[in-house]
Amino acid sequence: MQFQVSDELIDKIQFLIEEKNDEELLLHLEDVHHADIAEILTELSLEEATYIVKLLDSEKTAEALMELEENVRERILDNLSPKEIASELNEMDTDDAADIISELSLELQQNVIAEIEDQKHADHIVELLRYDENSAGGLMAKELVKVNENWSVTGCMAEMRKQAENVTRVHSIYVVDEKNKLKGRLSLKDLLTASSNENISDIYIPQVDYVNVHTDGEEVARVMQKYDLEAIPVVDEMNRLVGRITVDDILDFVREEAEKDYQMAAGISEDVEADDGIFKQTRARLPWLLIGMFGGLGAASIISGFQTILTSFPNILIFVPLIQATAGNVGVQSSAIVVQGLANDSLRGNIINRLLKEFGLALVNGISIAIIVFIISNYIFGTTTLESISIGIALISVIVLAALIGTFIPIILSKNNIDPAVATGPFITTSNDVFGILTYFLIAKAILGF
Amino acid sequence: MQFQVSDELIDKIQFLIEEKNDEELLLHLEDVHHADIAEILTELSLEEATYIVKLLDSEKTAEALMELEENVRERILDNLSPKEIASELNEMDTDDAADIISELSLELQQNVIAEIEDQKHADHIVELLRYDENSAGGLMAKELVKVNENWSVTGCMAEMRKQAENVTRVHSIYVVDEKNKLKGRLSLKDLLTASSNENISDIYIPQVDYVNVHTDGEEVARVMQKYDLEAIPVVDEMNRLVGRITVDDILDFVREEAEKDYQMAAGISEDVEADDGIFKQTRARLPWLLIGMFGGLGAASIISGFQTILTSFPNILIFVPLIQATAGNVGVQSSAIVVQGLANDSLRGNIINRLLKEFGLALVNGISIAIIVFIISNYIFGTTTLESISIGIALISVIVLAALIGTFIPIILSKNNIDPAVATGPFITTSNDVFGILTYFLIAKAILGF
Repeated sequence: MQFQVSDELIDKIQFLIEEKNDEELLLHLEDVHHADIAEILTELSLEEATYIVKLLDSEKTAEALMELEENVRERILDNLSPKEIASELNEMDTDDAADIISELSLELQQNVIAEIEDQKHADHIVELLRYDENSAGGLMAKELVKVNENWSVTGCMAEMRKQAENVTRVHSIYVVDEKNKLKGRLSLKDLLTASSNENISDIYIPQVDYVNVHTDGEEVARVMQKYDLEAIPVVDEMNRLVGRITVDDILDFVREEAEKDYQMAAGISEDVEADDGIFKQTRARLPWLLIGMFGGLGAASIISGFQTILTSFPNILIFVPLIQATAGNVGVQSSAIVVQGLANDSLRGNIINRLLKEFGLALVNGISIAIIVFIISNYIFGTTTLESISIGIALISVIVLAALIGTFIPIILSKNNIDPAVATGPFITTSNDVFGILTYFLIAKAILGF
Repeated sequence: MQFQVSDELIDKIQFLIEEKNDEELLLHLEDVHHADIAEILTELSLEEATYIVKLLDSEKTAEALMELEENVRERILDNLSPKEIASELNEMDTDDAADIISELSLELQQNVIAEIEDQKHADHIVELLRYDENSAGGLMAKELVKVNENWSVTGCMAEMRKQAENVTRVHSIYVVDEKNKLKGRLSLKDLLTASSNENISDIYIPQVDYVNVHTDGEEVARVMQKYDLEAIPVVDEMNRLVGRITVDDILDFVREEAEKDYQMAAGISEDVEADDGIFKQTRARLPWLLIGMFGGLGAASIISGFQTILTSFPNILIFVPLIQATAGNVGVQSSAIVVQGLANDSLRGNIINRLLKEFGLALVNGISIAIIVFIISNYIFGTTTLESISIGIALISVIVLAALIGTFIPIILSKNNIDPAVATGPFITTSNDVFGILTYFLIAKAILGF
């Protein structure tokens, strides 16, 4: 009962494509779920995949196209004419159609939109294209079921059945007023159990969770998770009902965002997969390595500026990696916790309190580590007492500094509407490297007295 | 229409609690969603929160308890007797009840389970407790609607209505045989449109996606996301239907896992929030700082072993931070991509091919960076040509080594059923620090000839 895309199946399909045996192909693919069709398309060559897409009817291929990786889909769409792309879009929900159109070049977008049969469908897609892709407006679909509060129960049944035809899953029926402003919701059960002489206004529930078109996707996910919603209505600046986001789309969004944040923290600047080509991966990874490189060069110039340490205090030098690694680790920890707190909207209190708390935490951790290092450096490495004190005090200072930087920067970025996750990863480690070594050497200079 | 937990509301509730004005309190909290009740409980003191939990009826407080952060819930449950806890559990779905019981001490678990009124409910909870918390068995609930394939349509309607009373959301009705083995599914629509003289076996859909009780939660999330499922049935080793996982639970799971992975990559060993106390955060963060510290001490002993460099080649020393930072960044990038590929089950090909590809990628990145550093060190820092060559070659070697380690270790961990995400973060950066400096100095020694 579980479908597996096996090598035998792929071989068979490739064979049938070569033979142009459309009848057999249709037979084999008839009952296959569109997500599995997408897997099959990924395993085929570009020509073979295009052949299948043109062979199967648009209702099936439209869904399959949505499940593909963006680069695979891009190559297949390149092989289709605007008219053929438009016929796929005709079968898609508006949010999916808008996503696909936005992946095309501007010129191709115009040509494709012109070929969409249903004018209303085209209007909806164009409307969705206006919104930022990570906002509620960019995530929503226009497909939903709504009734006017002034209608009677019987009167609206026919209207509802008509609307429900286009909606894949009906969770709630939304209630609007004459101006299309969202007033509340109804469940199917409520409608079915209502007596026929009642009005919608008698039976609907006026409490309904909703989001605004400009609400950030992360916030939408948070609200839907908090209230266990399967769908949430979206309103515009005038509170008019303009769309709906379903939980499966939010699940996709949450997983993609988690991957993006994870990669950003590792210093990877675009969406790459382990199987992408060497040059695509290089393009995503090299920029951050260059940032780290400049940080390293900055550290090199700082060290070369302290000639006395280089010539007279080798014991100070051998602990440079320790200082650097510790500063880096603390900075990454602090920023990770703050970035997550910002994403979960769970940070309470003002910045000053937060920095004070981080200061205290860093002191506790810093003193613990400094004591251990003091003992080990003094008794095992044979550094002088003054040198050991320099190392210990520098460790505490560097840990405090890294914790404060790692806490402060994401908060400031967030207040200025920049994704705080940018602050994690190489940015934090690089700045901590530079400031860490500078702090270390200045403290050594002060304590050792040169 | 959007509920906000305001300071005024909290003050009011605290006032009413002090006055023991139960009537007013119930009035205020009557229509409040359980997720918002949870927010209110979090803002109150422990005594105030316990007062509310005891005041409101269990059906409401049970849901609210599930929404609480684990530590807040723990403290409130500490204040309740086993009988009071059991009365909350009576109202919960089995998966939530099992989660809560597993948070209690073993002795308290026994006492609470003994107090659960419904013996069948208790049986179900005990069954769920056997499964690993991150497996399908640990995520599933026993509440579902199932019918026997041999029943007639009319015959099963009454049975279904009875089962549906306990199920919050009915998505599919599962069809089983005499031995309770999963055979297929029915949608509500199919049932309602079937004629009364048909049998279930005539109308059910034999294709149904399912998972096994031991399937990993990440895999469940992947399947549900792939097929846009709102619920998935869970079978045991004998294919018997034993439970169901709904999409809201998977959304919770995916978000929690993303947070955990993110924190693990930052070197934080347990689930901490930005608002946790200093000692709790220290307990989670210090262990990883200590690992980094030992790595730093390892690097210190390596450097002190190369006396010639310390005394005669200061230019080699000043680039130690650059080597270290680059090795760290490359290692983190490689491991992040591999860990994500493993989580998405999107890694193709065998280990050897992957390592070869990573080798090529590291060469491209390494040579690019080495050329830049060669030029800058030679012409700006004034290093000798031999020294610049040492630094350049060491950079390439260290980048290749870090990429291979960062790719190899997560794969090996995964093959041995250890969470590969453990390999990210401080483990990788620490080992790269040590190996990086060793490689650098050995290359310098070889090229500079001492």
